[in-house]
Amino acid sequence: LAKTRIVTLLSDFGLHDPYVAEMKAVLLSTANDVSIVDITHDIPKFSVRTGAFVLASSFSYFPPGTVHVAVVDPGVGSGRRAVAVRGSRYFFVGPDNGLLMPAVRMDRPFQIREITNARFTRPTVSSTFHGRDVFAVTAGMLLKGESFRSVGTVVLDPAEAAFPQPRAVEGGFDCEVVHVDGFGNAVTSIHESRLRESEIKPGAIVGVSVGRARIRIPFERTYSDVGKGRLVALIGSHDFLEFSMNQGNAARKLRIKPGSMIRISFGT
Amino acid sequence: LAKTRIVTLLSDFGLHDPYVAEMKAVLLSTANDVSIVDITHDIPKFSVRTGAFVLASSFSYFPPGTVHVAVVDPGVGSGRRAVAVRGSRYFFVGPDNGLLMPAVRMDRPFQIREITNARFTRPTVSSTFHGRDVFAVTAGMLLKGESFRSVGTVVLDPAEAAFPQPRAVEGGFDCEVVHVDGFGNAVTSIHESRLRESEIKPGAIVGVSVGRARIRIPFERTYSDVGKGRLVALIGSHDFLEFSMNQGNAARKLRIKPGSMIRISFGT
Amino acid sequence: LAKTRIVTLLSDFGLHDPYVAEMKAVLLSTANDVSIVDITHDIPKFSVRTGAFVLASSFSYFPPGTVHVAVVDPGVGSGRRAVAVRGSRYFFVGPDNGLLMPAVRMDRPFQIREITNARFTRPTVSSTFHGRDVFAVTAGMLLKGESFRSVGTVVLDPAEAAFPQPRAVEGGFDCEVVHVDGFGNAVTSIHESRLRESEIKPGAIVGVSVGRARIRIPFERTYSDVGKGRLVALIGSHDFLEFSMNQGNAARKLRIKPGSMIRISFGT
Repeated sequence: LAKTRIVTLLSDFGLHDPYVAEMKAVLLSTANDVSIVDITHDIPKFSVRTGAFVLASSFSYFPPGTVHVAVVDPGVGSGRRAVAVRGSRYFFVGPDNGLLMPAVRMDRPFQIREITNARFTRPTVSSTFHGRDVFAVTAGMLLKGESFRSVGTVVLDPAEAAFPQPRAVEGGFDCEVVHVDGFGNAVTSIHESRLRESEIKPGAIVGVSVGRARIRIPFERTYSDVGKGRLVALIGSHDFLEFSMNQGNAARKLRIKPGSMIRISFGT
Repeated sequence: LAKTRIVTLLSDFGLHDPYVAEMKAVLLSTANDVSIVDITHDIPKFSVRTGAFVLASSFSYFPPGTVHVAVVDPGVGSGRRAVAVRGSRYFFVGPDNGLLMPAVRMDRPFQIREITNARFTRPTVSSTFHGRDVFAVTAGMLLKGESFRSVGTVVLDPAEAAFPQPRAVEGGFDCEVVHVDGFGNAVTSIHESRLRESEIKPGAIVGVSVGRARIRIPFERTYSDVGKGRLVALIGSHDFLEFSMNQGNAARKLRIKPGSMIRISFGT
Repeated sequence: LAKTRIVTLLSDFGLHDPYVAEMKAVLLSTANDVSIVDITHDIPKFSVRTGAFVLASSFSYFPPGTVHVAVVDPGVGSGRRAVAVRGSRYFFVGPDNGLLMPAVRMDRPFQIREITNARFTRPTVSSTFHGRDVFAVTAGMLLKGESFRSVGTVVLDPAEAAFPQPRAVEGGFDCEVVHVDGFGNAVTSIHESRLRESEIKPGAIVGVSVGRARIRIPFERTYSDVGKGRLVALIGSHDFLEFSMNQGNAARKLRIKPGSMIRISFGT
């Protein structure tokens, strides 16, 4: 892997408490001169699937060699394994609960190792905060250039976080809302490539059924292609179909949230 | 301009989503060893004027040569231009919608250029996220020392964000509340220099009319010059007249918010 | 003290406004190439005691030589002194209102000096924002290697922030909830060492009386030792007794908040 001094952090810790700072403190105590970037610490508490989605959306923009540390960890201190992963371009460090895997599978070939070498943890490991006591140390050791092989034994059966796949139906798809961002943009599980098959072009109409309601929304290139306060369907910046409102909140208007099942239909 | 490795980011993206992190990822991929400071990402969504106020308040504390990137961009992907500005001490990068201009006008002489050179953007530019695909790349290129001239063509007619000017009336001013901070301090558009004309000194009384209500508030040097829970008028840390409450929330008490029109009178 | 280039910031400023960024701007203008870590800026407004607790919990994870700047400062601009402290491993900078002292007392021997040397402040000091105009400059000067002695005169009578001590009662303790974190974990003032005296072991039952209600809660090692949604007592990652709920919010369930008085009893 390329050498870099960059490490990212993603968690559900929030910024209210000193937990994120303690992870940074341990990172800076383990490796000199690292550059730390927060991806977000506002993952909904314990939502491994949302964390997995956000990590998979964003990891690949970073310089090769970056170490990505992610901690959404309801099973901390239980039997779940702590792992480090070497992919083709990045390292990943976190709990073995599926959080890392959607990103890891986009960075093939990869190897996963359980963190069993005590040199890769703090001398005393708490039962409740492996972000600080295990993952930050392991990330720091990898940034320092310690060999990945010495992390621990190879893991061949990592836990997975299932991402919902859209299901093709007559004239469209049944799919899930996988994320709602801070602007109220509702991101579906339909990748741009699926729309290319359907030959949807700007100016088309997309039907959206939520529960019994059905709404017709224009498919356009960007938010301001429709009037202020109007709904629009578009390909978002991560290449998935999403529903937005020009200068408004589409998810609130459509009454959908992460996990909502919706039916999409085209050309009617 | 002085050489530095510092870039600031200001946006309405919030920290809930990975958008800010993706801008940082692109910055770090474009220029090595940059130091990134978040000004804030909590600008009210789409509020160009608030973003302009906050940028103009804070940009000048940074070391000369700093590149300031600001993104409050309801017109992303539409015809609005993307621009970079070289001022006398700083660079600025963002949409041409007025967001940058109050700060830019404080950093004369300046030159504005439209970002038209494809080397200053990502190879593929999305329609919805120019913060990542355009502005972060341009900022990184300027930090690397690329010539400002190669950004693109000169812009002579930038869009402006109007700041409200206070209007002198008998014995005082009609003015606007331009910002309410997290403590509830309500900042008016009256600069300290206007008060010097009026010879207001600590111990004076300031009358504030909000709607039909009129309140008399002591003008003092700092919060604790009045009792806990008492209102006070003072010159805030950005040199504008503001209304505060010692260990309390003045804006809530006075029922004012950004955009509220108030009348200020002195000596009565 | 060891040399490092790390400075931490803790405040009640929030991230909504540019105040934290202005402190960083002044730090970067005073000392080159510093690495800034936010501990948190979400201390409840004016809560010196909470700030003191969070700083004391987290400062010792940082590399020796780190400069800790903390600003929860209801008395800014009044007569309260501004101070810098050299402990055995760290520097501390902030108001003399007790905020720093619980941490400082864990870093003995220490010396406290009032910031009276004008070289350690901005040329113009506002009455309302010493974080930017005093503390950031002093921190930058210490990071640059300026002598601690030149900060100002020695302070022998620093203000203190009283931490509540648990009171032993028959079969247990009366104690205070000193912190509730973003997960709803309620941290008490009972240090692990007090439990060792009482020989409490995983599997024991802890009785908690809040007002007239009394609840029996299992004492375990980690959250997932009880079922999802069940309460658990454990030693948290800062070595204090805390009450948690597996994937839920214990403080909300128990109706306790910072400052709540509770009675803890063992073995019944």
